[in-house]
Amino acid sequence: MTMSASQQEAARKARERLDGLAKPKGSLGQLEVLGVQLCRAQARFPPETDALKVIIFAGDHGVANPDAEGVSPFPQAVTQSMVQTMVAGKSCVTSLARTCGVTVDVVDVGVKGEYALVHRDESLVRFYRHRVCEGTANLAQESAMSRPEVEAAIKVGRDAVDRVLDEDGTRIFAIGEMGIGNTTPASAITTRLLGLEDPMALVGPGTGLDAGGVRRKAAVVARGLARQASLPEDALEVLRDLGGAEIAAMAGAYLQGPAREVALVVDGFISSAAALVAVKMDARVASHLIIATQSPEPGQRFIIEELRRIAADVVEDASSDAMPDPLLDLGLRLGEGSGAVAALPLLKASAGLLRDVATLDEVLAAASASAEADREAQEK
Amino acid sequence: MTMSASQQEAARKARERLDGLAKPKGSLGQLEVLGVQLCRAQARFPPETDALKVIIFAGDHGVANPDAEGVSPFPQAVTQSMVQTMVAGKSCVTSLARTCGVTVDVVDVGVKGEYALVHRDESLVRFYRHRVCEGTANLAQESAMSRPEVEAAIKVGRDAVDRVLDEDGTRIFAIGEMGIGNTTPASAITTRLLGLEDPMALVGPGTGLDAGGVRRKAAVVARGLARQASLPEDALEVLRDLGGAEIAAMAGAYLQGPAREVALVVDGFISSAAALVAVKMDARVASHLIIATQSPEPGQRFIIEELRRIAADVVEDASSDAMPDPLLDLGLRLGEGSGAVAALPLLKASAGLLRDVATLDEVLAAASASAEADREAQEK
Repeated sequence: MTMSASQQEAARKARERLDGLAKPKGSLGQLEVLGVQLCRAQARFPPETDALKVIIFAGDHGVANPDAEGVSPFPQAVTQSMVQTMVAGKSCVTSLARTCGVTVDVVDVGVKGEYALVHRDESLVRFYRHRVCEGTANLAQESAMSRPEVEAAIKVGRDAVDRVLDEDGTRIFAIGEMGIGNTTPASAITTRLLGLEDPMALVGPGTGLDAGGVRRKAAVVARGLARQASLPEDALEVLRDLGGAEIAAMAGAYLQGPAREVALVVDGFISSAAALVAVKMDARVASHLIIATQSPEPGQRFIIEELRRIAADVVEDASSDAMPDPLLDLGLRLGEGSGAVAALPLLKASAGLLRDVATLDEVLAAASASAEADREAQEK
Repeated sequence: MTMSASQQEAARKARERLDGLAKPKGSLGQLEVLGVQLCRAQARFPPETDALKVIIFAGDHGVANPDAEGVSPFPQAVTQSMVQTMVAGKSCVTSLARTCGVTVDVVDVGVKGEYALVHRDESLVRFYRHRVCEGTANLAQESAMSRPEVEAAIKVGRDAVDRVLDEDGTRIFAIGEMGIGNTTPASAITTRLLGLEDPMALVGPGTGLDAGGVRRKAAVVARGLARQASLPEDALEVLRDLGGAEIAAMAGAYLQGPAREVALVVDGFISSAAALVAVKMDARVASHLIIATQSPEPGQRFIIEELRRIAADVVEDASSDAMPDPLLDLGLRLGEGSGAVAALPLLKASAGLLRDVATLDEVLAAASASAEADREAQEK
C-alpha cells in the first residue's frame, strides 16, 4: 500500500523548492521535513493553510466510573465540566486556539450524563452532540463497546472532518480529546497493537498518578488484555473491545486523510494511540500524519517508532524525510489537543517558507553582480 | 545582583495563576515556565504580546574576507545580498515573520561595501544603516574592532530596542543576525568567556563546512585566542578583540532588558554567544532571556548551561523555573533570527493561557454541582 501519485508529486515539488531556496541546504531542519509532509498529506504544492481547525472528541470510560478502578486522580464528572469549559472558550485548548487563529469543534461522542451549555463562545467554538454511548463499559470487566457503537464512533470522526472540509475548505486538522481515564484504554490498545508483553513498559502517570496509581493502572490494563487475549489481532476489534468512543472518533478522523487529502496533526499519547489504530486499519494514513508533541507519557515513543516505520514503507522513503520528528518537546501532558494546536503555527511557518523565499541562485547572482561592481569601482 | 522587585512580583503572579488553572498542575510543562519568564522579563502580569519585532543586525568579518581564512563555504558578498533579500521580504526570516505576524528591522551595523535596496517590502521590513565599521579586521591577525567601534556597535543595539519600544510599545524582541563567517568570532568569544581550553570542543560546521573546514576554523579561532591571551578577562574587551559588529549590537540589544523591561528572544549559536557577552556585562540580563532554539552547532549547549546557571542566581530560584528550556529543537541552523521568530507564537500562546483559562476551582465546582444533580435525578 503506497501513497497516491499526486502525493508523491507534491512532496517532490516541496523538496525541490526547499533545496533551491536562499539558505544553506537543509538548514531549516525539521521545518523542511514538515513542509514536505504537509504537501504530501494534502497532495498539494504549495499547501493550504488558510482555515485551521481543532476537533476535540469527548467521551467517558467505564474504567473511570466512580468507585470502579481508580485509574485517574480526577472524578469522571470532570469530562463534562471540561466540555462545558471548552464550549465557553475557557479551557487551555480554546485559549491556544484563539491565540493561534484556529477555530474549535467540540464533539460529544460518548460523554456520560447530561449537562447544560450555559456559557458559549460562539465565535470560537462549535458544539456537536453525536453520542454513540453513555460512556463505555469497564474494559477491565467486559468489552468497552459493541460493534455498532465503535462503527458509529468512527463514523462520527469521519463525518466531522468531512463537514469542516466541505464547509471551510480546511486541510489542516488538529485532533484532540477529552475523557477522564482515557490513558487507560489508550495504554491497553497500544500494548495490544504493538504486541508488547508487559503494560508496565508504557503505562505512565497520565494526568498525575503516583507510582502506586501507575501500578494499579497497569494491572487494570493487564486485566483488560487477559480478557481480550482470545480475540483476533484486528485493529477494529481491539478498538471496540478496549474502547474509548472518543479514541474511535479520532481514529475515524485520521482515516479521512487518504480520501480527503488532508493533514492530520496528532497531539500526545492518546491521540497517538488513536493514530496507531487508524494506521493499522489503513497504512496510507501514515502519510497524512504530523506528530505535534513528544509526550512525557512513556507509551507514546513506542507508537511513534511504529508510525515512522509504516510511514517510511508507505512513502517509499527510508530517509528520515518520511515523517517529521514530533515538533514540540515541551513536556506537555494535558491532552485536549493542546500540543497539536500549539504546533500549528509551525505548520503555517513551513508553508510560508515554500511560498515566500527567494532562491539561492537569485541571491548568488545578485552577490556576484554586486562584487563585480565593487571591483570595478575600486579599479577606477 | 538580583532581578527587580517588580520582576519578582510578576513572576510570582504568573506561577500562582498557572497553578490554579483548569488543568493538572504543571501539565503544560515548558509553556508554563515560559509564561513565568515572560512576565519576569517584562516585569508585568499579564505580559504584553501585541507588537512583536525581530531586529536583525548585519555585519561583515575580516576573517571571512576573500582569500583570508576560508571559514565559510559562502563568499563574503552574500552578507549584503542577504540584507537585500531581507529588505525585499524574500528571505527565510522575513517569510517566518510575515507568517507569525512579526515586523522586521534590519540594521546594517558593519557590512562591507555598498549595495542598493531596489526591492523593498515596506509593509514588513524597515532598514537602518548605522555602520560602525566596514566589516571587522581579521581576528586571526589583529583586533577585530577598536574600542570606539565596539562601543558604537553596542549603542546601535541599545538604540534599536529603545526606538521600537518607544514607537510601538513592543516588549518582545527576537534578535537575529546576518554575517558570513560569524560562527568564527562567536566560537572564539564563547571559548574565551567560558574559559574553555580547546576551541575544537565547540567549533562546528556552521552553514556547512566539512570536517577539514571545521578543523581549519578551529585553528583560526585558536590563533585569535593566542593573540588575545594576554588581555584581561573582560567581556567588553573580548568582544572588541574577537569581534563582530553585529554580535556587539545584539549584545547591546540584550543589555536593554533590565532598563526597559522587555523580553529578548535568543536565536541560535551566534545569538547565544552575544547573549553570553551581555550577561557577562550585566548578569540581570539573564532574567530577560528566552532561548528559542537548540542549535545543532555544538557550542551553544555550553552557553545555555552558563546562562541557566547565571539566571538561577539572578532570579534566586534554583529550580528549572529560572529559565525555560530552548523552545524548539528542530535542527535549525540558518541564523537570521529564524528560530527566534518561529518560536514567537509559543510566547503568545503562553501569554494567552495566563489570560484566558478558567481556574480548576471553577471547573470542579461545576462538576460537583452536575454530579449532585445527576444523583438527585437518579433518586427520583
